[in-house]
Amino acid sequence: MASSTGTPKVTSVVDLPSSDAKWVKLQKATYVDAKGKERIWEIASRKTTGSAGVDAVAMGNIIYHPSKPPSTIVVIQFRPPVGGFTVEWPAGLIDADEKPEEAAVRELYEETGYKGKVISTSPPVAADPGMTSANLCLCMVEIHLNEGDPEPEQHLDEGEDIQRVNIPIAELYDRLEEFAKEGYVIAAKLYHWAAGAQYAIDHPELFTRLGKKGQ
Amino acid sequence: MASSTGTPKVTSVVDLPSSDAKWVKLQKATYVDAKGKERIWEIASRKTTGSAGVDAVAMGNIIYHPSKPPSTIVVIQFRPPVGGFTVEWPAGLIDADEKPEEAAVRELYEETGYKGKVISTSPPVAADPGMTSANLCLCMVEIHLNEGDPEPEQHLDEGEDIQRVNIPIAELYDRLEEFAKEGYVIAAKLYHWAAGAQYAIDHPELFTRLGKKGQ
Repeated sequence: MASSTGTPKVTSVVDLPSSDAKWVKLQKATYVDAKGKERIWEIASRKTTGSAGVDAVAMGNIIYHPSKPPSTIVVIQFRPPVGGFTVEWPAGLIDADEKPEEAAVRELYEETGYKGKVISTSPPVAADPGMTSANLCLCMVEIHLNEGDPEPEQHLDEGEDIQRVNIPIAELYDRLEEFAKEGYVIAAKLYHWAAGAQYAIDHPELFTRLGKKGQ
Repeated sequence: MASSTGTPKVTSVVDLPSSDAKWVKLQKATYVDAKGKERIWEIASRKTTGSAGVDAVAMGNIIYHPSKPPSTIVVIQFRPPVGGFTVEWPAGLIDADEKPEEAAVRELYEETGYKGKVISTSPPVAADPGMTSANLCLCMVEIHLNEGDPEPEQHLDEGEDIQRVNIPIAELYDRLEEFAKEGYVIAAKLYHWAAGAQYAIDHPELFTRLGKKGQ
């Protein structure tokens, strides 16, 4: 995605000692397996995990509008780790002593300008447990708009450049597939949510509970 | 989860220089943002990414049986990065020159003993794009069983200890919530798929496409 002033790009990538890193670190865990054998595992961790033990929050969001189809807002931004533009739900790190729900409302407001209401919070789930200790909570957030409400202003930190895209929820899965074909990198968590929803819509008979048929 | 011979545990965690790591590394990316300003970002990467540029594959799976409800198999294993037992869909790293679909069938067989058929493959999606370059494909796999088929044997690598749990697909979301309450760590990708499916089942009206009502 070309920005109004230029397209970001990675210009160099060099090895980084843990001691020089502010945000991440490499660790070697020694563990004993079920048979009593000592083994090792390499771990990438965040240095910033707060007292609550949860790194981040992602905001699954549903926007209700009187005359538009129910939708969700995704954000597009340049992500240096993947060297390209990602499509994700709004998300952010949880500040020290902040609750996931507080971080969800704050980060949604900063990244999108919308004020949402958290309707559910997941347990802490592991971002990529074969490689990292990083975890997050998924907060589902509802945003209720009135007819004619203007698109709100974002409240981004200096240096943040985040595009918002509003997608009818019924089209989310197809739109993510299209974004991928156009070269955007879809975040695994958003992709999985959309794929799960689409699978349930396409195969409702699989989700009929025993004893609940016809409900 | 207590194994038959003992409960694994992490006994020590120490810093690890990238040069001593076999699987992961820390990197510092220098990039130019949309305004032309030079910035840096810290990245955790896999050292093992193959020629195809995709690290891993996860197997979303649906098991069809003549007389049992459609189900999915999840795996429980001790994951040193989170210091506990995780609940995940079967997954694994893609070997060099292996296609995601080949890795999906191979890894599903190794971890569960089941032979599945890949019915769809996602684009490469980013595991945690704010922190890592790691990516994966989600392969949806169907497993068709006959009445009376015995539970197959796993074909695990030495040192792997992976428990299989078969869950009716209609109960997946609720069962993941229960697992979390019992102290298991749910993988974010599986949780998101289940949450998306449950959301679509609970809110089918949100997924009605304009012009397709009544279909």
